[in-house]
Amino acid sequence: MAWLGVDLGGTKVYGVRLGDDHEVETEAKVKTPRGGPEPVVAAVAALAEQLGLAGVDGVGVGVPGLVDRQRGVLLKAPNLPGWDGAFPLSAALTEVLGGRSVGIENDVSAGTRAEWRLGAGRGAEELLVVFVGTGVGGGLVLEGRLRSGGSGNAGEIGHTIVQDGGRLCSCGGLGHLEAYAGRGCMERVARESHRSGRRTLLVELAGAKRMTSGVFKAALDADDEVANELVASAVEALGAALAAAVHLLDLPAVVLGGGLADRLGPSFVARVATATGQRLLAGVAPLRIVLGVLGDRAGAIGAALMAEELAGAGGVASGL
Amino acid sequence: MAWLGVDLGGTKVYGVRLGDDHEVETEAKVKTPRGGPEPVVAAVAALAEQLGLAGVDGVGVGVPGLVDRQRGVLLKAPNLPGWDGAFPLSAALTEVLGGRSVGIENDVSAGTRAEWRLGAGRGAEELLVVFVGTGVGGGLVLEGRLRSGGSGNAGEIGHTIVQDGGRLCSCGGLGHLEAYAGRGCMERVARESHRSGRRTLLVELAGAKRMTSGVFKAALDADDEVANELVASAVEALGAALAAAVHLLDLPAVVLGGGLADRLGPSFVARVATATGQRLLAGVAPLRIVLGVLGDRAGAIGAALMAEELAGAGGVASGL
Repeated sequence: MAWLGVDLGGTKVYGVRLGDDHEVETEAKVKTPRGGPEPVVAAVAALAEQLGLAGVDGVGVGVPGLVDRQRGVLLKAPNLPGWDGAFPLSAALTEVLGGRSVGIENDVSAGTRAEWRLGAGRGAEELLVVFVGTGVGGGLVLEGRLRSGGSGNAGEIGHTIVQDGGRLCSCGGLGHLEAYAGRGCMERVARESHRSGRRTLLVELAGAKRMTSGVFKAALDADDEVANELVASAVEALGAALAAAVHLLDLPAVVLGGGLADRLGPSFVARVATATGQRLLAGVAPLRIVLGVLGDRAGAIGAALMAEELAGAGGVASGL
Repeated sequence: MAWLGVDLGGTKVYGVRLGDDHEVETEAKVKTPRGGPEPVVAAVAALAEQLGLAGVDGVGVGVPGLVDRQRGVLLKAPNLPGWDGAFPLSAALTEVLGGRSVGIENDVSAGTRAEWRLGAGRGAEELLVVFVGTGVGGGLVLEGRLRSGGSGNAGEIGHTIVQDGGRLCSCGGLGHLEAYAGRGCMERVARESHRSGRRTLLVELAGAKRMTSGVFKAALDADDEVANELVASAVEALGAALAAAVHLLDLPAVVLGGGLADRLGPSFVARVATATGQRLLAGVAPLRIVLGVLGDRAGAIGAALMAEELAGAGGVASGL
């Protein structure tokens, strides 16, 4: 038996084929087509052919948005070009994938599942996974199960307020973790600084293109002042939000993943661990913070694991 | 059968006797004796006699501190006069209570249990209970069970950072919820304002005594400017911390209890609900915030319920 996992992103669609031993057998990617659901369904079908459909029992798709998992409906995906309103993604994919069962879930939930089941959080009964990329999202494992939450949206740590009334977040709120540690918001602030006369390598390296995690890494390595400040604020904001989550839930471990954490690497994780530790109450049990190990494959691998779980549980994801 | 529940506080020891139907049959209180564990054990024994020990199968005690529930040891209780280091409270009480089984837990956990099982959160599968009093503490019910957490300390929402680097908290941290919404910290700020020349009814009414919730209520009713500002900050801080908890866990309901919430009443809860709602992401499921109904009996009632659960589960609290 094998399982396909697809990470449907705003810029690319990435997929893996996972064997019974949970090894990645094949992987492939395509650019996310513009124009909404129909071309995307066709692109996923083509990707699945490329990954190899023979022997595949189920497919999982991680999506950047709000889903109704039970009905397989993608409710809202503001980052997918051309998608307005809800779309029955599972049913549409089942039709083009030879009748195979297709489960969908939020991409961050999928990534959390992967780091927990096969990655840096392997075997944990209790875990918080935080992905620091363009935005900041997370997922929780409590008592050995992924937490879904009342409406399926648990894990939104990116919108934890760390500075009430502070920096504007991509969601329109003020002072959220994502406003300080999300690459999108960090880019906005870097460009504002640059325009107001504080030259920064961040803008010089990125030019008119997206300010990637690699650009942040290069600017940090060159000791760029604006990059230093932005990353320092990100570290402190992560420390505040992780401490709050640990105090509320009494957790022993955090995995930090996502593009920015991956690229800035262990030294970034060590700084976040220090910033968090400084904010923990005396007497709180020791907290372990580690870097994720699956990188940007986490979402697709997690989606494949979900497909496997769905099959094992007769069509309902275990623990959710 | 009947159960005794005792709320062992820094200033008073309050107890209830709970019948099989969960009605409070008797209640009693004494001043907390100074001098550490021994006089307190004697005081609890006297209180238990007063409540009526006949037919009592078990006793629960809520304590203001860190406990090892399994071993019945009170590890640390900085607010109990004369207590240094750990003390085997369960064993000591069993000895003076005719060999009856005695369970101990943190007082906030006990209060959470009471509001969940018999109070404003009755029947909830998912609930956050927050007690706003001298300090701010909380408890969580997730998937129909009280959350204990890896080291038994889940629910510390009082130390959620809402303003990183902000107002000094009683724990020494900066910008915590408790620094803005805990009556102890609010009193400190009121007295500082008064000393620096901003006269306030809060200090005039309290004099050299503790600034009670009643004093805050009276000053608010008289439209005292410092009281207005302090309560407004408390409301905003609660909004920020509750929104963060709801985003992380995806919760449908919050119960607000504790002396300050009780005294300021429904209008305070309504303000907190508004402040929280303003900070929730669009698309988040509706959140219900309600006032606790058990007042300052919550801790003792919850401790009695714990005793009942311990008996039912053969000595181990169910769900913990």
